[in-house]
Amino acid sequence: MKKIAVLTSGGDAPGMNAAIRAVVRRGIYCGLEVYGVRHGYDGLMDGDFQQMDLGSVGDIIHRGGTILRSARSEAFKSLEGQEKAITALNNAKIDGLVVIGGDGSFRGADKLNQLGLPTIGVPGSIDNDISGTDYSIGFDTAVNTVVEAIDKIRDTAYSHERICIIEVMGRHAGIIALWTGICAGAESIIIPEVQFDLEDIMERIQFGQKRGKMHSIIVVGEGAISGNEVKEKLKDKFNLDTNVIVLGYLQRGGTPTIYDRMMASKMGVYAVNLLIEGKKGLMVGWKKGQLTHLNFQDAFKEKHTIDLSDYYLARSISI
Amino acid sequence: MKKIAVLTSGGDAPGMNAAIRAVVRRGIYCGLEVYGVRHGYDGLMDGDFQQMDLGSVGDIIHRGGTILRSARSEAFKSLEGQEKAITALNNAKIDGLVVIGGDGSFRGADKLNQLGLPTIGVPGSIDNDISGTDYSIGFDTAVNTVVEAIDKIRDTAYSHERICIIEVMGRHAGIIALWTGICAGAESIIIPEVQFDLEDIMERIQFGQKRGKMHSIIVVGEGAISGNEVKEKLKDKFNLDTNVIVLGYLQRGGTPTIYDRMMASKMGVYAVNLLIEGKKGLMVGWKKGQLTHLNFQDAFKEKHTIDLSDYYLARSISI
Amino acid sequence: MKKIAVLTSGGDAPGMNAAIRAVVRRGIYCGLEVYGVRHGYDGLMDGDFQQMDLGSVGDIIHRGGTILRSARSEAFKSLEGQEKAITALNNAKIDGLVVIGGDGSFRGADKLNQLGLPTIGVPGSIDNDISGTDYSIGFDTAVNTVVEAIDKIRDTAYSHERICIIEVMGRHAGIIALWTGICAGAESIIIPEVQFDLEDIMERIQFGQKRGKMHSIIVVGEGAISGNEVKEKLKDKFNLDTNVIVLGYLQRGGTPTIYDRMMASKMGVYAVNLLIEGKKGLMVGWKKGQLTHLNFQDAFKEKHTIDLSDYYLARSISI
Amino acid sequence: MKKIAVLTSGGDAPGMNAAIRAVVRRGIYCGLEVYGVRHGYDGLMDGDFQQMDLGSVGDIIHRGGTILRSARSEAFKSLEGQEKAITALNNAKIDGLVVIGGDGSFRGADKLNQLGLPTIGVPGSIDNDISGTDYSIGFDTAVNTVVEAIDKIRDTAYSHERICIIEVMGRHAGIIALWTGICAGAESIIIPEVQFDLEDIMERIQFGQKRGKMHSIIVVGEGAISGNEVKEKLKDKFNLDTNVIVLGYLQRGGTPTIYDRMMASKMGVYAVNLLIEGKKGLMVGWKKGQLTHLNFQDAFKEKHTIDLSDYYLARSISI
Repeated sequence: MKKIAVLTSGGDAPGMNAAIRAVVRRGIYCGLEVYGVRHGYDGLMDGDFQQMDLGSVGDIIHRGGTILRSARSEAFKSLEGQEKAITALNNAKIDGLVVIGGDGSFRGADKLNQLGLPTIGVPGSIDNDISGTDYSIGFDTAVNTVVEAIDKIRDTAYSHERICIIEVMGRHAGIIALWTGICAGAESIIIPEVQFDLEDIMERIQFGQKRGKMHSIIVVGEGAISGNEVKEKLKDKFNLDTNVIVLGYLQRGGTPTIYDRMMASKMGVYAVNLLIEGKKGLMVGWKKGQLTHLNFQDAFKEKHTIDLSDYYLARSISI
Repeated sequence: MKKIAVLTSGGDAPGMNAAIRAVVRRGIYCGLEVYGVRHGYDGLMDGDFQQMDLGSVGDIIHRGGTILRSARSEAFKSLEGQEKAITALNNAKIDGLVVIGGDGSFRGADKLNQLGLPTIGVPGSIDNDISGTDYSIGFDTAVNTVVEAIDKIRDTAYSHERICIIEVMGRHAGIIALWTGICAGAESIIIPEVQFDLEDIMERIQFGQKRGKMHSIIVVGEGAISGNEVKEKLKDKFNLDTNVIVLGYLQRGGTPTIYDRMMASKMGVYAVNLLIEGKKGLMVGWKKGQLTHLNFQDAFKEKHTIDLSDYYLARSISI
Repeated sequence: MKKIAVLTSGGDAPGMNAAIRAVVRRGIYCGLEVYGVRHGYDGLMDGDFQQMDLGSVGDIIHRGGTILRSARSEAFKSLEGQEKAITALNNAKIDGLVVIGGDGSFRGADKLNQLGLPTIGVPGSIDNDISGTDYSIGFDTAVNTVVEAIDKIRDTAYSHERICIIEVMGRHAGIIALWTGICAGAESIIIPEVQFDLEDIMERIQFGQKRGKMHSIIVVGEGAISGNEVKEKLKDKFNLDTNVIVLGYLQRGGTPTIYDRMMASKMGVYAVNLLIEGKKGLMVGWKKGQLTHLNFQDAFKEKHTIDLSDYYLARSISI
Repeated sequence: MKKIAVLTSGGDAPGMNAAIRAVVRRGIYCGLEVYGVRHGYDGLMDGDFQQMDLGSVGDIIHRGGTILRSARSEAFKSLEGQEKAITALNNAKIDGLVVIGGDGSFRGADKLNQLGLPTIGVPGSIDNDISGTDYSIGFDTAVNTVVEAIDKIRDTAYSHERICIIEVMGRHAGIIALWTGICAGAESIIIPEVQFDLEDIMERIQFGQKRGKMHSIIVVGEGAISGNEVKEKLKDKFNLDTNVIVLGYLQRGGTPTIYDRMMASKMGVYAVNLLIEGKKGLMVGWKKGQLTHLNFQDAFKEKHTIDLSDYYLARSISI
């Protein structure tokens, strides 16, 4: 192993830069040359590589987004695209690759590995829904960002005694909604993993009102239903007026929290160590409070789930 | 003057609590009894008064929203409603009122004054569009909140080389859009006060792309056009894909900045001083960098405008 | 189990309020009466109890400090003091106690348990140095606070090309210094667990300067040496000028992060569940990524250690 | 006017980068070549110039510190140093200079102007103590930073019922202490402009305690007395225990607020406009809520004062 490359792929997540920094610096520290690939798999196919030195990743540990840019590549999904990438990597004499991204990105990484290029995946996604790991880089920052936003919205909800429906990200997973709902003290939380019940939501609002809490927050995970649909249903069924806020892209950005910087630093270093040890076709994971690794194929078979006891915890203390 | 009351009305704004605190504490310091009116003019008509002591406004200077709650009252717009309020105030022997709010709230305050109750207005509105003053409590916090949000969105815009349209509040006034556009380095700013030009927006995007800046931010004041309409127009005319984010209510909340805490403290104290001096039918204003006051009627005749030189400043440095 | 009480003891930590809220609400949800004890063990001896309802812990999940106040009690260390507390608890018919605090607080809780009052400990300490658990409430917030402060200091260090020594909290443990040093990209980290070497620190400064990084940050855990001593040693040995910043109390306060709110909510609920199940003389712990509990006595035998691999990680990527 | 240069001098302040950006972009927009001078007057003497393009100041509007670095130069105070600077500027054919800094920096700028090089000053200093202007870039950010820190310290002060003395920056001026004291609700504020009285401080503490507020914050401007001296005096006179926190360098850094970004943008553009109009030997000022300019010599004669009514305002509402 003399030359390795690193890329970011899929949705960007805070902490990806900290992971790039860790890969680059650990690589150089261990005597490797490290190359950055721009624009994810698109750049990989095009041979858009750039050698990284220590200073190239200075002053980025605290920046959101990814300095290497990211993309979702359609072309790379074909064998032709993958072979093009292998050729580009071979031409540059790169003999190892670290891919920072989510499930989709790891499927691509697995293909490259099968085609002979040693590849390691590092999980990065605010949605924290990646199979094979309890944690994905970016989740901690995203939930902090969402709760900060809800805290501001609550000021207005309180002042005008409004009921606010806040739609948050998470794709098919409800963990962003669940954690932010718990930590913002939301009166109701709607997630894809649990069937919701309008009557129950209404009861919780009324229970609060009975003890003088006239405002209410409902957090909705985008994978369950849209905020606007909830609004309409509450209007139709109970003639209840609500305000909908869709937080959108601001959930993806921002300075990474310490937890994300640590996880990104640890995972990036660990990925380089694996490559140097001759390991390949693996993703880095975080399980039972420690770093681990597993085959991409094994990871794909696992299903990332949420801890339903957290859902019931919310019901007993957000009252 | 022995007993005064304070209420907040209209849209809530960060710093209103600091103003309430200043009114209550200054009043008590000067030997008055001070009453808080809950729910704005609705509470005034209902006699929903509560005596405030020093501790009742402790630990609120840094809280968004308003502890007195706010509302937009339809009933109070009628003479009947206003007379009901006067009766409630007389019954409680309250002989002075401070109204924290915007233009609409001041029209109500002016009516009460004409009906014999000495009234002073304190300008509070994130939109900073109140006639008769250069500054309204809440604006500084709101623009800081918006720019923080845009800073996060920019991380994602940069990473994916996207063009983002961000719709911000401000009602008929473009000052939130203008300031946040300048301070977030937005490539284009659309405000109600200046006719916008799609060609120009496109040129500015392309100018940036030519020098390698592949992402772009367009800030849109809600009073000019909606973000979604801008998106459609850019799609129709240039087949350009953009992402729209509507920031919504989170712009109204949050811990007030120091500027808002200072302005609120100064204005609240000044309002009480005016009442004690026997003044009435006035609003507190901030002009040429200092506190002033003017008759409600004179204020209504003025029109709050923005400084267009700031608009041209943006064009010359956000390139 | 019909009535339980909750107190906070020792140094305050962000998230303690979230834990109090969880204990109170979970208790009420499960049909218990819950009492808050003010001023830690001092208040316990004095019978300073107050019944808590759902609203009493509303709007506190996001507040630093502890609404119950805290204290370090000398009197309670004697058997006499402990018996006084038991009497006060018996008089109030309280039959279970949750103590939120650190090692010292748990020693007190263990005594009460031995004297017949079922007691459960919840670990709260920014220092994250409590035996028997991998995590203590408050650590995540504290490290985020410290890194935010260092990020600001770095602006000035960069601008004036200064070498800054930043002394952080942690008592005998270096984990605050270690994590913040890694996440702020500090060039050197001094912790009690590893012998430091002035030559090495100097070399790391010079290595950075050679590649153009003229400023440098040295993070020092208070348990290793004081910042001022490091300054003097660098002055004596290398005639090097440095600036010392002692962060002090601001590290203890602030809005708790999501991680701390979650851990506090989970641990508080878990503690109440244990009491209801008839368990006692236990502390709640977080091990291998999940909630657990262990006897106070067993916990005291364990020694909380840091992961030295993190120290070496810092050396390979902060260069 | 074809080529202009810009430098930052003296203590760094948040917003200096926004001012550099405004100077560079406005200059280029108006057809000038713009050069950045590194390391303040030291770099000026050494001819350490670098041409700036639009991208060179991209992504810096939100960064604390100064990308051009700053320094306090002893050598430049001599005529020899100044002539060396003139020679370097002439060699580079630079015919205009913008100096961003404080009083001391402007004295240097005035000398250069007298030696024939057109020079304009832009006031930048967190201390807001520069003669000839009501506002200096950096003050708004600094006071927000200080109050955020005090808000955290208050959590601990409240929880442990402590009296905290917080020493803040400001050199000979008390305005940082005054504004932060007002906005953090400090029970006492000690500033150089007003003789302080230990008895009065003690009375204010006791007055609060009587109404149940057991903690207290005393803000001390470094120009009046040190925090530790206040501590000793309170110990000696009243046997009162207090905790001292010296905030130090973290007050200088951090992301500039919107107010600082706006002022810096306006002032930077205005400075370039003045140079283009052929003006020289002037500083940009902010007076009565608008931009203005005045001769360095006239500015030096003015004395920057604080508004003492703010001091008395604090006494009437922080009770």
